[in-house]
Amino acid sequence: MDLFFLGTGAGMPAKLRNVTSIALKLLEERGAIWLFDCGEATQHQILHTSIKPRRIEKIFITHLHGDHLYGLPGLLSSRSFQGGESEVTIYGPKGIKEYIHLSLSISQSYLKYPINVIEIEEGIIFEDDQFIVEAGLLDHGIPSYGYRVVEKDKPGTLLAEKLKAAGVKPGPIFKKIKNGERVVLEDGRVIEPEEFLGPPQRGRIVTILGDTRVCENALKLAKNADILVHEATFSKGEEHLAFKYFHSTTKQAAEIALQADCKKLCLTHISSRYERNAWQELVQEAAETFPNTLIAEDFKEIHIPSK
Amino acid sequence: MDLFFLGTGAGMPAKLRNVTSIALKLLEERGAIWLFDCGEATQHQILHTSIKPRRIEKIFITHLHGDHLYGLPGLLSSRSFQGGESEVTIYGPKGIKEYIHLSLSISQSYLKYPINVIEIEEGIIFEDDQFIVEAGLLDHGIPSYGYRVVEKDKPGTLLAEKLKAAGVKPGPIFKKIKNGERVVLEDGRVIEPEEFLGPPQRGRIVTILGDTRVCENALKLAKNADILVHEATFSKGEEHLAFKYFHSTTKQAAEIALQADCKKLCLTHISSRYERNAWQELVQEAAETFPNTLIAEDFKEIHIPSK
Ligand SMILES: [Zn+2]
Ligand SMILES: [Zn+2]
Repeated sequence: MDLFFLGTGAGMPAKLRNVTSIALKLLEERGAIWLFDCGEATQHQILHTSIKPRRIEKIFITHLHGDHLYGLPGLLSSRSFQGGESEVTIYGPKGIKEYIHLSLSISQSYLKYPINVIEIEEGIIFEDDQFIVEAGLLDHGIPSYGYRVVEKDKPGTLLAEKLKAAGVKPGPIFKKIKNGERVVLEDGRVIEPEEFLGPPQRGRIVTILGDTRVCENALKLAKNADILVHEATFSKGEEHLAFKYFHSTTKQAAEIALQADCKKLCLTHISSRYERNAWQELVQEAAETFPNTLIAEDFKEIHIPSK
Repeated sequence: MDLFFLGTGAGMPAKLRNVTSIALKLLEERGAIWLFDCGEATQHQILHTSIKPRRIEKIFITHLHGDHLYGLPGLLSSRSFQGGESEVTIYGPKGIKEYIHLSLSISQSYLKYPINVIEIEEGIIFEDDQFIVEAGLLDHGIPSYGYRVVEKDKPGTLLAEKLKAAGVKPGPIFKKIKNGERVVLEDGRVIEPEEFLGPPQRGRIVTILGDTRVCENALKLAKNADILVHEATFSKGEEHLAFKYFHSTTKQAAEIALQADCKKLCLTHISSRYERNAWQELVQEAAETFPNTLIAEDFKEIHIPSK
């Protein structure tokens, strides 16, 4: 599981930072990529990476500002020419369906794969046996969602030697115990699975927020996250500007990470007002409050290790 | 007057060629840039040039395929942040108005300058004292326009010495003659302006065609052009494929240039199937029919000299 930053800028593309898009690489977990936001030229950025568009399974749009959205029709169209055949599910605020359908139909773009566009509301928007994704509304003037991706815990490894020592013979019964089922042996003995499984592997939590002011839902979505990706459009001391434009400062992002007991904070949505030599200072402003902070850069990858 | 190629590829962005956009630089003539097509990431390409978005006065969209269109909302939005205050007029096929308005409104992008979107039909779509722009429908499966930009002839320089020798005294009368007006002197003599003006400066003709099969309108729009920009999605010998997909080959483009008595042909809309080392071969295929052929490349500029 890795986060790969395709665009980390604010508002407009700049030479060093494209507009927002973040790939959550779930290649080992499910052979898939989940994309968060799709600013203009996200597909161009992908050209310079090892990401295969056909592997994109889900696209989560945080909000409909152009710098998070305008790359979507082009990416969907090109995926069709790049061998994409599997369905793509797109989650986003109300209005995204009309935007996608008009953009594709006016240009007579016929995709060779199905798309499923879901206009979300707050709550659990996706769940399968591996992941739960929860969405919550932030504070950005227009509807802007944060996404909390929770990997489900996996049962511990089967203690096969211990089972054999207890006189249980290998067979289908091992699989049942591995899956956490309680089993009654032929001799009447009851096998409690917890006794024959190692500690469960805790799932990881990745929280990616759309543009926002400091708000209660940011805290809630970020609770205990292994990594929180938070915007930092302004620097410490510019809280009044951040409030006025519905954004956050470096320090405010750090306070959320601290209060939510996150493990790591990654600042993104960095304005081109900050040149390369100022980036470390932005990190420093946050690190005073939350030490394990880093700053996103286009083409930077962050590994999220298993626990 | 210069043509500057911002994107010269076909269908999808590729590393060496972005999707279509061409800037006609009229900086000396009117301090303005006219843009032809606006594929995704045209604004990103502009970041690497000396083009000022606020100078963009008109945008002509040839057709609504995504590779000619999807960069428009982002370019318009960013121009607003980049000091653009003057009106932009956008010409394009029916449907462009809805696309622009929905893209801007759904993202709540408020421009600080007015836009005027004109859904065109064939004929003269613009005229002022400097230029006439004519549009004609091509053959591309969906409505695709070619644009013929005709610079008006300018009257020749005033032969002031000859006027003085004829006994005409400098004054407002000189201006009238310069403007081509017939003047009657106080002594009753008639001054025919042609006799006191150098040869008129002939205007230039620039023809930029949207994607198309070989067709009659291409020929008509290209007549006597100083430069014809023509697509060449396929190479010589692939005429059946070109026909099937509503495109042209290198040789077909050259035949149009030859029959239309153009001065120069520039091939564009080059597929990424052709790698850099094949480009000269594409030129050669056309040059067999029309010698003064060149191939567009991203960031290439072609000067169009005065006559
Ligand atoms: Zn925003
Ligand atoms: Zn086309």
